[in-house]
Amino acid sequence: MNGAVSVVKTLLSSGVDTCFANPGTSEMHFVAALDQTRGMHCVLGLQENIATGMADGYWRIARRPASTLLHCGPGLANGLANLHNARRARSGIVNIVGDHATYHRLHDPALSMDTEALARTVSSWVRTSTSVERVGHDTASCVQAARAAGGQVATLVLPSNVSWDEGGVSVDGFSDLARAPIDAFAVDNVARVLRERENVLMLLAGDAASEVGLALAWSVAEATGARLMVDYLNPTIARGRGRVPIERVPYSTDLAIEAFARFEQIVLVNSKGPVGFFAYPGKPSMQYAPASQLHVLSRPDQDAIQALRALTSALGARRAAAPSTGERPTIAAGAPTPERLAQTVAALLPENAIVADESISYGRGFYRLTHAAAPNDWMHLTGGAIGYGLPVATGAAIAARRQRRVLSLQADGSGMYTLQALWTQAREKLPCTTIVLANRKYNILVGEYKAVGALPGPTAMQMLDLGNPALDWVKLAAGMGVEAARAENMEQCADLMSGSFKRDAPFLIELLI
Amino acid sequence: MNGAVSVVKTLLSSGVDTCFANPGTSEMHFVAALDQTRGMHCVLGLQENIATGMADGYWRIARRPASTLLHCGPGLANGLANLHNARRARSGIVNIVGDHATYHRLHDPALSMDTEALARTVSSWVRTSTSVERVGHDTASCVQAARAAGGQVATLVLPSNVSWDEGGVSVDGFSDLARAPIDAFAVDNVARVLRERENVLMLLAGDAASEVGLALAWSVAEATGARLMVDYLNPTIARGRGRVPIERVPYSTDLAIEAFARFEQIVLVNSKGPVGFFAYPGKPSMQYAPASQLHVLSRPDQDAIQALRALTSALGARRAAAPSTGERPTIAAGAPTPERLAQTVAALLPENAIVADESISYGRGFYRLTHAAAPNDWMHLTGGAIGYGLPVATGAAIAARRQRRVLSLQADGSGMYTLQALWTQAREKLPCTTIVLANRKYNILVGEYKAVGALPGPTAMQMLDLGNPALDWVKLAAGMGVEAARAENMEQCADLMSGSFKRDAPFLIELLI
Repeated sequence: MNGAVSVVKTLLSSGVDTCFANPGTSEMHFVAALDQTRGMHCVLGLQENIATGMADGYWRIARRPASTLLHCGPGLANGLANLHNARRARSGIVNIVGDHATYHRLHDPALSMDTEALARTVSSWVRTSTSVERVGHDTASCVQAARAAGGQVATLVLPSNVSWDEGGVSVDGFSDLARAPIDAFAVDNVARVLRERENVLMLLAGDAASEVGLALAWSVAEATGARLMVDYLNPTIARGRGRVPIERVPYSTDLAIEAFARFEQIVLVNSKGPVGFFAYPGKPSMQYAPASQLHVLSRPDQDAIQALRALTSALGARRAAAPSTGERPTIAAGAPTPERLAQTVAALLPENAIVADESISYGRGFYRLTHAAAPNDWMHLTGGAIGYGLPVATGAAIAARRQRRVLSLQADGSGMYTLQALWTQAREKLPCTTIVLANRKYNILVGEYKAVGALPGPTAMQMLDLGNPALDWVKLAAGMGVEAARAENMEQCADLMSGSFKRDAPFLIELLI
Repeated sequence: MNGAVSVVKTLLSSGVDTCFANPGTSEMHFVAALDQTRGMHCVLGLQENIATGMADGYWRIARRPASTLLHCGPGLANGLANLHNARRARSGIVNIVGDHATYHRLHDPALSMDTEALARTVSSWVRTSTSVERVGHDTASCVQAARAAGGQVATLVLPSNVSWDEGGVSVDGFSDLARAPIDAFAVDNVARVLRERENVLMLLAGDAASEVGLALAWSVAEATGARLMVDYLNPTIARGRGRVPIERVPYSTDLAIEAFARFEQIVLVNSKGPVGFFAYPGKPSMQYAPASQLHVLSRPDQDAIQALRALTSALGARRAAAPSTGERPTIAAGAPTPERLAQTVAALLPENAIVADESISYGRGFYRLTHAAAPNDWMHLTGGAIGYGLPVATGAAIAARRQRRVLSLQADGSGMYTLQALWTQAREKLPCTTIVLANRKYNILVGEYKAVGALPGPTAMQMLDLGNPALDWVKLAAGMGVEAARAENMEQCADLMSGSFKRDAPFLIELLI
């Protein structure tokens, strides 16, 4: 077999059966290998940031890696922003990047860049495979790296001659590397803090925001009086009825500082010390009070569930029932407001749905108004690189094998970054509902601009305004094969949402806000 | 003044008066500075690869740099592919990238990447400005670097605190760095080759493909019997009636090898030894015959015009009239074919138009059938990173101050990479006509796949086919405020083209091929 066939066979034997691809010439042998093997589900994205975002969404829901297949150099560059988000989400991705033949790239052909330099900016593991005999082995190592430490971006660079040369050897999947163990001393130390000190906050991230993690943390909170909070941005949080309703760190630096002010002790559970998203003149970088003490229960590369279990044991904390999330609200009426939209989402969201939240400024308040929705997994923009929403929603729907409704709450400015994902939703007939929050401006920047000190003048406003001409999302969606309609009030929005949830295909609602 | 104001003032005093922007929070002080100064034309792109591609197109036509304004980390990443194309085009770009405050980024906030590592992959000059007193000076240095060596990507990283701190000093523009001089010995040597040897090819690139460069090269050819060829990919070539009709190196490795086979001596005029775009099994990387001798008249960083003038003097070559390009053809009728489209373009193209050619597989034959068009500047995809066409066309129209018609010959697969550029065309009311060549597949890859050895099977074809669902470019364009219509035959296409050329606004034709 050639190298490409050995790569595909090794991926399959390593449990990687989904490939999000945008291939080019240097990847044609890989594509040919797909016809010579069975079992790989290939999903095409019309630009690489779609492919990498889908791989991120896939991991967040499936908790196992998919592969990408990207074109050399600029192909990888186009997909970096969503790989950055994936890195911040700690999503495991087997990131396969084609490249020129090893002997060809030294001639600096037009389409060559420093592939490894690009890859290193987002990857925990990078290897260029240079021999056909070893490429199967390298592939298995790449999958192993993608699964390690709770999930990592692992990049395998695949020169075209290594793909086409004969002599490939496929390899059985390697066993998982052990995660760094939880330290018993650290657990005891945190238990002592929780027993003996006042004003303790447990700041949760990663798997600590899963249903099991939240339940364990809640038991600790009930036993000790500690308070709980999750990071502002999370790969997924288990939310809705029956899950522990937990507040996020606020986005605003001032509000975050206020939220942390009263906590003298902060226990980090897979989180890191809270850093402001941006710096602002005269405001600190770190959001906790200078006198606060940080205690690490578990690092992001460790297993939060294991750490929380050990902590409940050390404390003798009994399992506590999750507090009630209250009555599920009913749908709202009238002109769209953030509160009414959140209420309507909480009212209508189907059981076990997945929410891809890229609502940016409009959605700041969605979170606290949706605790009483049906059980769901809620996803955030972990790395702040806008344009994550539609691709991650698409990959999540594929990971859920089309069995779960995916709802995108999508700001219009960010949505334009990766609108091509809608085409993949149509092609794969995915149960994705997108609500585009059409305010026709970069509203977050209008807010940030005001923080600079003044109202934007005409030149500045030109940079923040998307209304001239107005984007027509109904036409954009239709142009990519996705049915769509416009809603100007909450009644229309609720009707379209309900209707879309019954469809076996994507649907887009442009909500004029 | 604060640092941001000193940057904007320094840009203006350095002759940079156009900024292609997609700013974020860390760039808000720069945006605010735009309202405090006069004279900067800011153009918004809805994704960074639009902004960087526009800056490339601007240089190709204006021959002076514009600046970009990109958001930190992933913002730069999103714009890298078109910066790569710009680097290969040797386009001068003042690439301004915001970043976190210097003291903030050490805390590794979510939206931080290794900005300089990303920048180095495409830039000849990279500097992070770390003090408000120096940022004006750094800006002037950046502009100087962008103009140097015939045009370079120069990246200035601008931390937000350097923007907002008071104490900025604006600087008068620095004078241009001298280009590396033409070597008289090299000129004499090439003159001797041209006088004394047979089967000499002059391979032209960069400024040698300008109207003046081609005329000088033609004079040399007429005086010595040498043959002329231009690179396969060129930033701009002066074409049409009255210009020297010159053939390109073919894309296909086999055809290129055939084209070079008979040349024993190859004189490089700002070109490099011809390298295949990709490697293929059993085919060489270099396209010239192994026994061929390469002679460097001028390197890409030198001035080709100066070199060619020196060469005509050394040879005593007299100015020769350009050969006739023949009769301008008339418009074609019937079902679309590449030949009929090329003929129709040649018939209808207005005087002094600009052509952005990203026609990929369909357009392989366009070039030789359009020699008899009205005089025009024809642009290519220099770096092979697809998605250059629409942004570069947009930037070119702005450089031409809306006074020249820009025609995009745009493959559909590549067009989807950066379709957001259409919105900027609508907002800026640019005289851009786009013909989308809608074959609804990655046809170049179908060809490349066949070179692998077989017809694509069902899984592979799924990766190469864009027809399920079919993209509707008329709706996509309308969704971004660009009027559009579909053409199914050449008569309709010609009608729509003619009509569009009279408009003071963009228009898109989806040509079903």
